[in-house]
Amino acid sequence: MRIEELDTPALVVDLDKLEANIAKLQSYLSSHGIANRPHIKTHKIPEIAHMQIRAGAIGITCQKLGEAEVMADAGIRDIFIPYNLLGEHKLTRLARLMQRATVSVTADSEVTARGLSEAAQMANRQLTVLVEFDAGAHRCGVQSPQEAAALAKCIAGLPGLAFGGLMCYPNTPQLDPFVRETRALLEAGGLGVARVSGGGTACMWQAHTHRELTEHRAGMYIYGDRATVQAGAMRLEECSFTVIATVVSRPTADRGILDCGSKTLSSDLLGLQGHGLILEYPEAVIYGLSEEHGHVDFSACLKKPAIGERVTVLPNHCCPVSNLFDRVVGVRNGNVELTWRVAARGAVQ
Amino acid sequence: MRIEELDTPALVVDLDKLEANIAKLQSYLSSHGIANRPHIKTHKIPEIAHMQIRAGAIGITCQKLGEAEVMADAGIRDIFIPYNLLGEHKLTRLARLMQRATVSVTADSEVTARGLSEAAQMANRQLTVLVEFDAGAHRCGVQSPQEAAALAKCIAGLPGLAFGGLMCYPNTPQLDPFVRETRALLEAGGLGVARVSGGGTACMWQAHTHRELTEHRAGMYIYGDRATVQAGAMRLEECSFTVIATVVSRPTADRGILDCGSKTLSSDLLGLQGHGLILEYPEAVIYGLSEEHGHVDFSACLKKPAIGERVTVLPNHCCPVSNLFDRVVGVRNGNVELTWRVAARGAVQ
Repeated sequence: MRIEELDTPALVVDLDKLEANIAKLQSYLSSHGIANRPHIKTHKIPEIAHMQIRAGAIGITCQKLGEAEVMADAGIRDIFIPYNLLGEHKLTRLARLMQRATVSVTADSEVTARGLSEAAQMANRQLTVLVEFDAGAHRCGVQSPQEAAALAKCIAGLPGLAFGGLMCYPNTPQLDPFVRETRALLEAGGLGVARVSGGGTACMWQAHTHRELTEHRAGMYIYGDRATVQAGAMRLEECSFTVIATVVSRPTADRGILDCGSKTLSSDLLGLQGHGLILEYPEAVIYGLSEEHGHVDFSACLKKPAIGERVTVLPNHCCPVSNLFDRVVGVRNGNVELTWRVAARGAVQ
Repeated sequence: MRIEELDTPALVVDLDKLEANIAKLQSYLSSHGIANRPHIKTHKIPEIAHMQIRAGAIGITCQKLGEAEVMADAGIRDIFIPYNLLGEHKLTRLARLMQRATVSVTADSEVTARGLSEAAQMANRQLTVLVEFDAGAHRCGVQSPQEAAALAKCIAGLPGLAFGGLMCYPNTPQLDPFVRETRALLEAGGLGVARVSGGGTACMWQAHTHRELTEHRAGMYIYGDRATVQAGAMRLEECSFTVIATVVSRPTADRGILDCGSKTLSSDLLGLQGHGLILEYPEAVIYGLSEEHGHVDFSACLKKPAIGERVTVLPNHCCPVSNLFDRVVGVRNGNVELTWRVAARGAVQ
């Protein structure tokens, strides 16, 4: 089957580009002695996780327990969940997950650490816990090396837990000084900082500039999107991930309506103008989305599309788009080669 | 099981409120002689569609063929798809759908109408087609009564098609004059305007003010959300649809992080400030979302939550949220009574 025969909207991955993206980041990180631990929240597809591991990744990163369970079911054996896991449900599931995979997690509070200790004791296994620190993104994470060191000591003292190192997202210039100061504070007590885990696709090619980084977590690098191109981390032609859509209405000379709205492209703007780039009409602006309609201004385009014409849209942000589809179609040279189930989609908790 | 025992993030529907919302709109529309044709894109759950029909709805509205197929599978027999269906795949599926349900659709161009005629001939059944007109929202729709009349005549002349009337979204003051002018243009040719289908939840209680309206399509009225409350169409306490989340981090005195991000609440702002209302902390502001984290400023709250505390979030826009979950939990007086599968979620095409 040809790509032109797919019903729309269709989520399509160019397999040559996907493979090249996987190889390129692996090669870069390997050449700098940084472990590659890709974030599967972008694709949520076990087959792609296995491609990443075969290429040299030391394991994967999941953002939630539900994703980790799907990946463990698919045979992935080294899983990092850089998230504060809390509550009886999640701790019981974590204990179960520890029976079939090597799991490491993070904590940014003693409350989280104490829960993790219970899970480890339930599992009767040792759980590696990294301390999450805030490198400037102001999301989760302890605020100072003093806090980091205190939490590391707490973790090291809790039954079933091993202090594994430090984690942040994304990498910033604060990474190295924060790690060094924390290490200095821990030295007296004999605690080492084995892993320093950073992340981000926009900043991936600068990973080697962070001397303390031992592993990097990137997610979007496999697909790419408008935001990744805008950040200068990927070239437009490297992006492997597009939505094929149909022009379903041309109500006025300048306006066109696509069959992809916010339930296809998501509403993520990431600071960009418009909701995606139409590759065949780069001057067009997707100025609005309703749930199943993309509203496009074609006024800047010399040639304008006809009703029924198919177009290729590069989304602003690949992660939420992939999360909206049950299936992704893999193509090579325009030929449909496979269909992957987005198996960890809907793994909400 | 109690609501407090659900793992988070959980999507919860209060069944008493849901039933009351269904009854209230039905009663209002019935009292004004307006047919109720609820839009199931909001819930995508056959069980709720059946509740709406048992309450008096004449049929349902679906925004895409995939939704209609799921609803037909569940025994719904009168389905309106107010969308330009184009292309061989969709027309073949439409023909198949016509074998098991009474389907009506819309068109805003001759290209769409000609395709629909092919589908009707494939199905060997008559297909009712309404003309979509633009009542001011500037999405799809013909732009003038002259265009509407010309397209209506084209439809009436195409094999297998019957001209069914006019459709717009949402209802605006332009509805009545547009319909009247189109009707006048069609009278000479003996074409009547049987159905005038309007829609919208924000404007639902004004449906009776549009004298030409014969049926109304509302979707969000069953659940409600911040946007619906903001529009004055529902009271906060009528909203049946909330996300239960956990505070997973309290990195600073004022900041809190919830385990619901853009993959739970969606990024839809709908012109509102913040990404949802925390019912227990109404002064708090969900000022940012990453995919699995909600970033909250609790500075305006006298009391601030502890790590591990559970909160109830009213989303900005219920439709994309429901589309992100595979399952919805129905509760009554805080007791879990059932779980519904969001069966038409992922029906992407």
